[in-house]
Amino acid sequence: MLKPSQRGENMPASPIRKLVPFAEAAEKKGINVLYLNIGQPDIETPPSIMNAVKNAHIPILAYSHSAGNISYRKKLVQYYQKLNIELTPENIIVTSGGSEAIVFAMMSCMDLGDEIIIPEPFYANYNGFALMAGVKIVTVTSHIEDGFALPPIEAIEQSITNKTKAILICNPNNPTGYLYSEEEMKKLEEICFKHQLFLISDEAYREFSYNGKATSALELEKISQQAIVVDTISKRYSACGARIGAFITKNKEVYAAAMKFAQARLSPPGLAQILAEAAVDLPDDYFDAPKAAYLSRRDLLVKRLNAMPGVFCPNPGGAFYVVAQLPIDDGDRFCQWMLESFSHQGKTVMMAPASGFYNTKGLGKNQVRMAYVINNERISDAMDCLEAALKIYPGRID
Amino acid sequence: MLKPSQRGENMPASPIRKLVPFAEAAEKKGINVLYLNIGQPDIETPPSIMNAVKNAHIPILAYSHSAGNISYRKKLVQYYQKLNIELTPENIIVTSGGSEAIVFAMMSCMDLGDEIIIPEPFYANYNGFALMAGVKIVTVTSHIEDGFALPPIEAIEQSITNKTKAILICNPNNPTGYLYSEEEMKKLEEICFKHQLFLISDEAYREFSYNGKATSALELEKISQQAIVVDTISKRYSACGARIGAFITKNKEVYAAAMKFAQARLSPPGLAQILAEAAVDLPDDYFDAPKAAYLSRRDLLVKRLNAMPGVFCPNPGGAFYVVAQLPIDDGDRFCQWMLESFSHQGKTVMMAPASGFYNTKGLGKNQVRMAYVINNERISDAMDCLEAALKIYPGRID
Repeated sequence: MLKPSQRGENMPASPIRKLVPFAEAAEKKGINVLYLNIGQPDIETPPSIMNAVKNAHIPILAYSHSAGNISYRKKLVQYYQKLNIELTPENIIVTSGGSEAIVFAMMSCMDLGDEIIIPEPFYANYNGFALMAGVKIVTVTSHIEDGFALPPIEAIEQSITNKTKAILICNPNNPTGYLYSEEEMKKLEEICFKHQLFLISDEAYREFSYNGKATSALELEKISQQAIVVDTISKRYSACGARIGAFITKNKEVYAAAMKFAQARLSPPGLAQILAEAAVDLPDDYFDAPKAAYLSRRDLLVKRLNAMPGVFCPNPGGAFYVVAQLPIDDGDRFCQWMLESFSHQGKTVMMAPASGFYNTKGLGKNQVRMAYVINNERISDAMDCLEAALKIYPGRID
Repeated sequence: MLKPSQRGENMPASPIRKLVPFAEAAEKKGINVLYLNIGQPDIETPPSIMNAVKNAHIPILAYSHSAGNISYRKKLVQYYQKLNIELTPENIIVTSGGSEAIVFAMMSCMDLGDEIIIPEPFYANYNGFALMAGVKIVTVTSHIEDGFALPPIEAIEQSITNKTKAILICNPNNPTGYLYSEEEMKKLEEICFKHQLFLISDEAYREFSYNGKATSALELEKISQQAIVVDTISKRYSACGARIGAFITKNKEVYAAAMKFAQARLSPPGLAQILAEAAVDLPDDYFDAPKAAYLSRRDLLVKRLNAMPGVFCPNPGGAFYVVAQLPIDDGDRFCQWMLESFSHQGKTVMMAPASGFYNTKGLGKNQVRMAYVINNERISDAMDCLEAALKIYPGRID
C-alpha cells in the first residue's frame, strides 16, 4: 500500500493535544477535568465585533485582496500608530491566523536547508512549520532558574553558521510567559545587524504584558529592513476561531515575495476580516479587564505553585502561560497519571508536559506548562488537585 | 541588504492578476472593463447561509477541531451520500479553502524532490503550492484540437519516473472547462493502480457539469486507498471569500499525516464553517438556477467565439471557463493591448493569457482563458469588443 511522505511521518504530533484521549477517558469516568493544557481563553469575544459580522450586508462573499481588505489594513495601521509604530497598508499581509504568517515568513526569508535559531522551550508548532518549509531549527536553551530570560548573546552567536538566516522569538513568550526586556530586544537587534539575520518576532500576546509594554521588533530601527512581525487577533480579542493574523515587514522585497505566497492561496478568511476590523475600534480601555483578570490569575497560580514543596515557578511578565518545575520523574508520565489514575474531590487537572517544547532531548523532563485561561476559583481547585497529586504520585523525586 | 529566499524569488506571479495594473489604468481613462479574467462568480451567495452566521450565538469564538467542526464534517458526509459516495467524518479535514487542501495533499503524500504529473494547461497556483512543498511538476500536454481531453495514457506513462508519486487533475477543469469522462477516470484509476501513484483530484467545480455528472476520484474503487479529493465551497455556493475547503481521503495513514499539518495551524476558519454547514441543507434544486445560468452563458460565449474568423473554442463540459485560440501573435501582448490601446463603444475586455497555464515554454501563446462569470448581456458586449479588437489588432495572424 502507498505510504504517506517521510515528512508526513516526521511531522511531530502536538504536545498540547496528545493527552486528549486520556482526558476524554477521565471525563467518561465522571471526573471533572480542569483544563490548563491549551491556550484557549475563557474571555468572551467582544459582542460588538461579532455584531459587525452580523450587521454586514454581503450579497456575494467574494475573494478579498490577497493581502487582506484595504479597509482592515488601514485600521491595523491605526492600531500600530497607538503603539508608536508607523506602518502603511503595504507593510501588512492579512493571514489565516498567525500560523500562516509564520509559514510565509519562513518561506519568503529562507531556503531549503537554511537554519533558524529559536530559544527553547518554544511554541511546539514552530517544528511543524519548519518541517513544512524544509528549514532546520537550531535551539539555544533558556533556563527556568533565570526565569527563561534570553540566553546569553555568546550562546546565540555560537549557534550561528553560514546557513543561519533568521532568529525567531515569541514575545511575550509561549510557553514560558517570559517578556523580553527592551535591553534584550536591543541585544537581538545588534546580533541580527552584525550577522545580517532576519528577526522573526511572534507577538501574539503583545497586549498581555504585565511589567511595562512589550517591545516590538518593528521598533528596532537598526534592523527595520530585517524585522518580520507575526501578529494575530486570536488571543488579543479572544477570537482564536476567527483565524485572522498578519505578516508585517518594512522590507519591500520580502513583502513582495510573501505576497506571491499569499496570492497562491487567493485570500484570507473574509467574514472574520470584518470582525477583526471592528476590533480595532474597541475602546482604548478594552484590554484593561482581560489584562486584570489574567494578572490576578497569574498571581494566584504562581503563588500556589511556589507554596508547594519542591515546586518552582518563575513569575512571568506576559502572555498567559507558566512553565513550572515539579518534583517528578517525568512530566509526560505525570500528566498522563493525573488523568488516568488520580482525582481529588472528583476533579483532576490536564497540563502540557514541557518536554514537547524543548528540542534538546532530556530537557524539561520535570517541567509542565500551564495556561491560566480558567477563572480563579477553578485555578484554586486545580492547585488543590496538583498539591494532593504531588503528595501521592509514585514517581515523586525530591 | 538581506534578500528574500531564492524560492521567494522563484515563486511565480499569478497569470490571472498580472494585468491588473493595466485594467486599473483603463478604468481611470473612463473605459468600462468587462472582467473575464478571474473565476469570481457574480452569483449571489445564498442569503440563508449568510443568515446562519448572523443567527449563531457564539460567546467565545474558540478554536474548532483541527479537522473542522464534527457537525460540519457530518453534514459533508450527507452531501457526499447524495452523490453515492460513502464517507465518514474521519475521512475529512476541513481546510482554509481548496488551496490549503492541495498543500496538505502534496506535503503528506510527497517528499522534497518527488514528482507530480499534471496535464497542462493547469490551474497556475499549483506551481506555487508545488514550490512551497518542494516537489517537481511534470506536465503532459492536452491539446485544444481534442477539446483538452486527457492526454493519451502512453504520454502519461512515459512521464513516470522512480520519483513520481502522484497525478494531479482538476475535474471539471480550470482553465479549460474540460469534464473528464468516466472512461478517462477509469484510465487514470488503472495507471495509478499499476504504478502505485496517488491521484489528487481537485473537484472544486463538481456541481457545474453540463454533460452528465462529474466522476469523483472517490468513486474509483481500485484506488480507494490512493485517492485524495480536494474540495471547496468557493464556487459551489458562490462563497469564495469564506475560505472553506476540504481534504478527503480514505487512506488512514495519509489522513493521519495530513492531520498533523492541520494541527500545526490549529483550525480552519470558524465563522465560515457555520456558513458551510448551512449550505449542505440548501434544497436539492439549489444548483439548478446557477447551473442554468452558467450553461446559457457558456453556449452564448462558445457560439460567439466560434463565429469569429480565425477563432476556435472547444465546447467544454463543466466549470465556468473556456480556453480559446485566437488569430494573434501573442496572448500576453494581445490582452495587454486590449486594456492599454483598445476600446469599443467605451468598453474593453480583460482576459487571462493562456501561456501562464502551461509549463512547456511556447505553448498556449495564441490562447486566452475566459471565465463566464458575468451575465449574458455583458458577455455579448465582451464578444462585440473582442470581435472588433481582432479586426484591428496589429499582431493579428491568419
